[in-house]
Order: sequence, then structure tokens, then C-alpha cells
Amino acid sequence: MGKLVIVGTVAFDAIETPFGKTDKILGGAGTFIGLAASNFNVDSAVVSVVGGDFPQEYLDLMTDRNIDISGVEIVKDGKTFFWSGKYHNDMNSRDTLATELNVLADFEPKVPEDYKDAEVVMLGNLHPLTQMSVLNQMETKPKLAILDTMNFWMDCALDDLHNTIKHIDVITINDEEARQLTGEYSLVVAARKIHEMGPKYVVIKKGEHGALLFHDDNVFYAPALPLEEVFDPTGAGDTFAGGFAGYLAKTEDYSFENMKNAVIYGSTLASFCVEKFGTERMLNLTASEVHKRLGQFKSLTQFDIELT
Amino acid sequence: MGKLVIVGTVAFDAIETPFGKTDKILGGAGTFIGLAASNFNVDSAVVSVVGGDFPQEYLDLMTDRNIDISGVEIVKDGKTFFWSGKYHNDMNSRDTLATELNVLADFEPKVPEDYKDAEVVMLGNLHPLTQMSVLNQMETKPKLAILDTMNFWMDCALDDLHNTIKHIDVITINDEEARQLTGEYSLVVAARKIHEMGPKYVVIKKGEHGALLFHDDNVFYAPALPLEEVFDPTGAGDTFAGGFAGYLAKTEDYSFENMKNAVIYGSTLASFCVEKFGTERMLNLTASEVHKRLGQFKSLTQFDIELT
Repeated sequence: MGKLVIVGTVAFDAIETPFGKTDKILGGAGTFIGLAASNFNVDSAVVSVVGGDFPQEYLDLMTDRNIDISGVEIVKDGKTFFWSGKYHNDMNSRDTLATELNVLADFEPKVPEDYKDAEVVMLGNLHPLTQMSVLNQMETKPKLAILDTMNFWMDCALDDLHNTIKHIDVITINDEEARQLTGEYSLVVAARKIHEMGPKYVVIKKGEHGALLFHDDNVFYAPALPLEEVFDPTGAGDTFAGGFAGYLAKTEDYSFENMKNAVIYGSTLASFCVEKFGTERMLNLTASEVHKRLGQFKSLTQFDIELT
Repeated sequence: MGKLVIVGTVAFDAIETPFGKTDKILGGAGTFIGLAASNFNVDSAVVSVVGGDFPQEYLDLMTDRNIDISGVEIVKDGKTFFWSGKYHNDMNSRDTLATELNVLADFEPKVPEDYKDAEVVMLGNLHPLTQMSVLNQMETKPKLAILDTMNFWMDCALDDLHNTIKHIDVITINDEEARQLTGEYSLVVAARKIHEMGPKYVVIKKGEHGALLFHDDNVFYAPALPLEEVFDPTGAGDTFAGGFAGYLAKTEDYSFENMKNAVIYGSTLASFCVEKFGTERMLNLTASEVHKRLGQFKSLTQFDIELT
């Protein structure tokens, strides 16, 4: 079993959907990634920063799940990063109502000593220079470096993003961002162009339409589980990435074939995440529920045509 | 091996895409369905109508493929149905430039005597009363009646559509149409409502995002093959339906498990259809190409997670 180091926000979110709205609740990419990866009982550490206003009980939720938080800096006189958003009726688009960087503005990630030899590094969505700083702190080259990013960094830090992408193995990105990054509409062509930027593996997240994994000329398609109701999509992409990274850290098999399984695990965990507000569903998820839903994914996608 | 009777337009299309434009070429739902089904060497008949302007060579293309065209009425002094459309840059939406019903306006389908005991009936997109007329001509109840429709009939013949839908086993419909027909955004909920209208099986076509097959609480997801380039989407949905119907007529196994395979065959054939203008690719398709692409569909979707 490999070690997993995660960098990402640990934050407050306030979310409004057609089904209701929340006050400030636990959120952040690092949180969702860590919670998802914790389903695999890997040794993982979250590297992040919070303010003095961040409740101890939220930190305890992570340590309870065997997530090392020694790399979560607490700035006593600072305020925790806060994001607020409102989803439209179709749940496929949202407006950001507020983004208060607070302590995140001066965030300098520090990887715990014990994790500088981690096999897997998961770089959650942050400034590409912050992501690069984590990679630079690793004392042994990770077996797998995974990076998530978003259109914001393409708009305001494209050169830095290109420099960081060169050094990673897997990028996870949504379909519109893949198109923006490459100027290509076809996701097949976009994935090839992203390969040329560095990553050997490209995961394109298509929300309710699932996710594609590209490697050289190979492609794998994991659908999203068709759901009666998407209650809150917040964190689904990070949960996907956390499941993907956690499964690979656990199995230590970084082949394309095993990465298919990692994509399925990521999709499975993401299908739970959207059932409740924020992290609620992920905090109340049992191994037998995951096992049962994996079975649903199998019957959703597996067929029996013999090719001779 | 069962017999398959198909009703649908045999027509002229003129198509414009970002890649080019055509003059009047062979088109029509009945044509695409028939060509797709012919890959399974089933006994099939197309029921349709054309004008005196319809070239004999186009009819010969069908008889060459063992498609019975005795049910294709030729109205000597009439003109063939003509549709013209222009696709937008993303290829996911199009404008209809012209629809000339011509001989289709007075179309009264006549099922050939030999096909009044066909096991499978494929009702291509037409007025629901025309579709019902075909069902009414069957002397033995088909094992499987499949219906394709579109938003146009929901707008202008909704009651007739509801009456026809009651009598069919499988409906194929695209995602936006499923939402329009039911008033539900969630495709899971929409499929359940459509079940209640009659069809035991609901196939929801999502274009580049694949297709979903619903039956009671079971669901199967066939992705579309990610393509470098979609050259012309015209006929892809009909080709899907023709592959689906043809495979089921060939195997005579109408179980949910076998219907999964039928969806995969439909998706496979549709992935070829979009590679060239109109029917061009379907007219130059070999069994070994189909076989090879089925292999691609397997590696695209099959994974190896053992559940104990």
C-alpha cells in the first residue's frame, strides 16, 4: 500500500440548489479528496491552510478517518477560505456568489516529512505554482503525480499551468476546460494535445455524462450512474479525483488497465457525493454501500458479446 | 432468425456541415434503419413511399442488401420527400432549412403480405397514426414493436402519439424529447414516466454521450465511441435503431440482457454512420470493420473489478 499526499483547499462552502440552501458548511477540494481516498484505508496526508475560525470538529472528522492533518496549517488570526455558489435548475451550471480567499491568499504548502516519499501525489485545484511547490518538496519522485485544475488558472496563470503540467502523469479536467486549454472541440483531439503538454494520462470529466480516460491511443469511458436526483454537485469532481488517487495508492498498480478500475471507483464515490449537501453523504458512507454501488456500475456497463 | 418490418421515410437529404455540403443525396429514416439492419442478414422489408424522381439505383442499393422493397410505393407523378439541414459548429444542433413532404403527405403504409407475421416491427419516425397503421396490419402480434419519434409529434400530435405508444414494447427517443414528453429533467424519472405510458423498455439517445436502456429498475449505459471528428450526424439515431432492431430480429432473444448487446451493436453502427455524409459510410461497411469496432467498444467500457 502506497502513501498519498493531497494538496487542496479546506474551506467553508455555502451552497444554494433548487432543493435548498446551506449556511457555511465544510467544503474544499482537499477535504473532498481526502474523504474519498479514506475509503481505501491508505495512509494519506492533506496539505492545506485554514483560519482560526475553522472548527476543531471538522479537523477531527479527518483525523477520525486516518487522514494526517499535520500539513494543515492553522493561521490563528486569519479566516478560512470561503466559497459560495448557486446552482441553476438543471444543476449543470452554477453562479459563484462569493469567493473570499482569506488565508489561502498567502498559502505556502508544507509537505510533512513523513510524506516526502509518498508514492502518489494528488494536486487539487490551486494556483499551478502552489501545486508545483508540493511536487518540488518531494524527496523521491512520486510514482504518480495527478493534477486537477480549472478554467480560472487558464485565464490568469496559463504559463505557470503549462510549466506545472509538464511534470505530472495524470491530469483531471472537465470537458469545457479541456476544450479551452487546447482550442479543440473534439475531446479525442483535445486529449492528444494535452498528452503533448506532458501528462501521459488524461481524464476528462463530463459530469452527468461520466468520464473519459485517455492514454496514447487507448480510451476508457466510465459513465456516471443515472440518478433520480442530483441534490448538490459540489465536490463531485474532487471526490472522483480522490477515489481515483486513493485506489491507485492502495493497489500501487499504475497501469492503464488498473487505472480503468480507478476511474470506476472515482465515479462510484462521486455518485454518492451528489446525494446530499457538501460532505454529508461522504461522512456517512459504508463499505457495503460502496460495494453494492460498484455492482450497479458493473451491471450498468458490462455486456456479453463474444468476439471470436 | 426473425423477420423485421421497418416503416420510415426513404428520402432525399441535402446536408451542410462545417466540413462541406451535399446536393440531394439518399437519406430517410427507413433507409438508414434498413441499411443498419442489413448487417445482420435478417429478412427485412422497408415500407415507405417515394416519387417518380427517385433513382432506381437507390432502390437497387437496398435490394442488393437483401432488403425487401415491395412495400416501397412509387408515386410516378409525385416528388420524393426532401429534407435539408445545416449543422452548427459543435455538430450537436442543427437548423432545418427545408422540409418538403411531397408524396409523404398522403402516405398510407402497406405491409407486404410476407411480413405480416414479422417478429420485429421497427416504426421509424413518422406521424403516430402512420406508425399505428403498420401495427394494425400485422396478422400476428409481433414479439417486439419498437418506435422512434421526435419532438415534432409531441408538439402537433401528442394524443395520437400517446395512443400509439401504448401498444409498443420499446421506445427510442433522445434526451431532450424524453424531457419534453414527461416534463421531467432527470432521465431516470423521465424513463419511469414513459414506462407508465406503455413501453416496457425505454432507450434514451444522448448523441455523443451515448445511450441509456431502461427496463423496470434496471439501467444500461452504452457510451458513444469518442471520435476525432463527427463528419455528419444525419441518420445516426436511425442507424442506432436499425442496428438495435436488426440484432434482436437476428437473435430472437428479447431479454434485457440481450437488449444490452443490441444497444452496443446500435452504437457501434452509429459510430460509423457519422464518419461520412449521409449513407456513404454505411454503404461501404464490411463485417470485419464492424467486428473490430465492437472490440473497441469492449475495451472502451469493460473493466475488471471482482466483487466478492
